[in-house]
Amino acid sequence: MIKKIDHIGIAVRSLEEALPFYTDCLKLPLLGIEEVESEKLKVAFLQAGETKLELLEPTSEESAVAKFIEKRGEGLHHVALAVDDIKERIKEMKENGIRMIQDVPKAGAGGAQVAFMHPKSTGSVLYEFCEKKGMDK
Amino acid sequence: MIKKIDHIGIAVRSLEEALPFYTDCLKLPLLGIEEVESEKLKVAFLQAGETKLELLEPTSEESAVAKFIEKRGEGLHHVALAVDDIKERIKEMKENGIRMIQDVPKAGAGGAQVAFMHPKSTGSVLYEFCEKKGMDK
Repeated sequence: MIKKIDHIGIAVRSLEEALPFYTDCLKLPLLGIEEVESEKLKVAFLQAGETKLELLEPTSEESAVAKFIEKRGEGLHHVALAVDDIKERIKEMKENGIRMIQDVPKAGAGGAQVAFMHPKSTGSVLYEFCEKKGMDK
Repeated sequence: MIKKIDHIGIAVRSLEEALPFYTDCLKLPLLGIEEVESEKLKVAFLQAGETKLELLEPTSEESAVAKFIEKRGEGLHHVALAVDDIKERIKEMKENGIRMIQDVPKAGAGGAQVAFMHPKSTGSVLYEFCEKKGMDK
């Protein structure tokens, strides 16, 4: 059901300030930087084994990540679980009494279909289901 | 240098309460439960692809994880990066101006040698280097 940890989302104030630790110190390959207009985010992806680290810089104070940083500071934000049939997974979670933030998958970074679980159902961890098609799995 | 995400550490008040979400809803295999006396923790490991989720239940109020939960609540605690030569990695980090919590590796759960970086050097993410020998990589 869960194929792997697709990525770990990390809230940062500035990609420019955060990236050197990842690229120069940890020497992780930077896969790319993408604007996710719908989430008001600029996102950098770094590869670590089969998992990506996803650095999330808010581009507006209205971004949920900006509000997260304001409240809790920078740091670990969410964990994305790679699945094949996201609609089926959402259905199962709801049958198990898990509250979903999205009942219907929405478009995420990297062309994925995503849906978040409510942290109140998961011991305060923001988990995301993430389904990718084709080459970019 | 970084081989994979070895595990993601998650602070929980109670393994008994936290585990059913992981085992019954997400259907992740529970690999085992271990007491880490030196850290005053009871730790459950679940497999997700090449990475483990490590649920951390404090067994004493003196545990660093108990203090974390008191301050920030349950949730994402740390990310462990699998490396081969932990002493060399610590040396490199220090040369790069990264502050280590452990300059010398210490024994962690699962027979690993571990060393944590100070979150002040890493954008408020608690990163661990983790070196495992032999079969349990």
